Amino acid sequence: MVESDPSIFTLIIQGNIPCHKVYEDEHVFAFLDINPCSIGHTLVVPKEQSATLDGLSEEASAAVGRVLPRISRAVLAASGATDFNVLQNNGEAAFQSVFHVHFHIIPKHDDGSGLTWPFATTQLDPGEGAILAERIRSHLK
Amino acid sequence: MVESDPSIFTLIIQGNIPCHKVYEDEHVFAFLDINPCSIGHTLVVPKEQSATLDGLSEEASAAVGRVLPRISRAVLAASGATDFNVLQNNGEAAFQSVFHVHFHIIPKHDDGSGLTWPFATTQLDPGEGAILAERIRSHLK
Repeated sequence: MVESDPSIFTLIIQGNIPCHKVYEDEHVFAFLDINPCSIGHTLVVPKEQSATLDGLSEEASAAVGRVLPRISRAVLAASGATDFNVLQNNGEAAFQSVFHVHFHIIPKHDDGSGLTWPFATTQLDPGEGAILAERIRSHLK
Repeated sequence: MVESDPSIFTLIIQGNIPCHKVYEDEHVFAFLDINPCSIGHTLVVPKEQSATLDGLSEEASAAVGRVLPRISRAVLAASGATDFNVLQNNGEAAFQSVFHVHFHIIPKHDDGSGLTWPFATTQLDPGEGAILAERIRSHLK
């Protein structure tokens, strides 16, 4: 892929690939991870396309930082968790699979689901995803 | 501990507990983790004392977000890594041990050290820490 090709997340942000969106502003887009580690697993993505965090602009990174508390509160309220991890991976050796900066918000549930090792992911059911995304959005209003 | 007690990180920020500082601005303080997962493991901490990210102000969280790319670049340059993870834990079930928001920047090295499971930490040698912190600071100038 050349640097100017749109990433899969840019295609999602542009609406060319569907997602369960939970939040959007000028700089930031957030949606449910299609392979969640736990119920509520959400990706917070800068619209600026940078492969890794060290290459992201300060403005875009500040915009992501600004909304992390608010989106986290909504994810917790919608999923019923109180504990959670934020994880952001850079480089293949550091488990990055999509090369567009993204912050995982991963709720930790009483059943042990959450950030575990090796990463235990499931497939997001489209119907359940739609309901969950609507619940998160309602907590962001 | 009552809410108003200073956290161990607030004591570090105030200079009452020593650390290997690498960065400071109005809202953010960063220093080497005393129990690093890998060489260069750095903690980026808002001066605002909130136990977890969901309770942090938007202003403080934006300030942390703003400096993460720049501090990451300096940590990579000083430690020789190219890949890295950013991890931020909230709640005991999510592996949080110090209840003052902090973002881990954890370089991934060719020897496999970095973010692993279970967390494999070492003890920071004070002399090596001083040299490493100075190298990171020099890349932040």
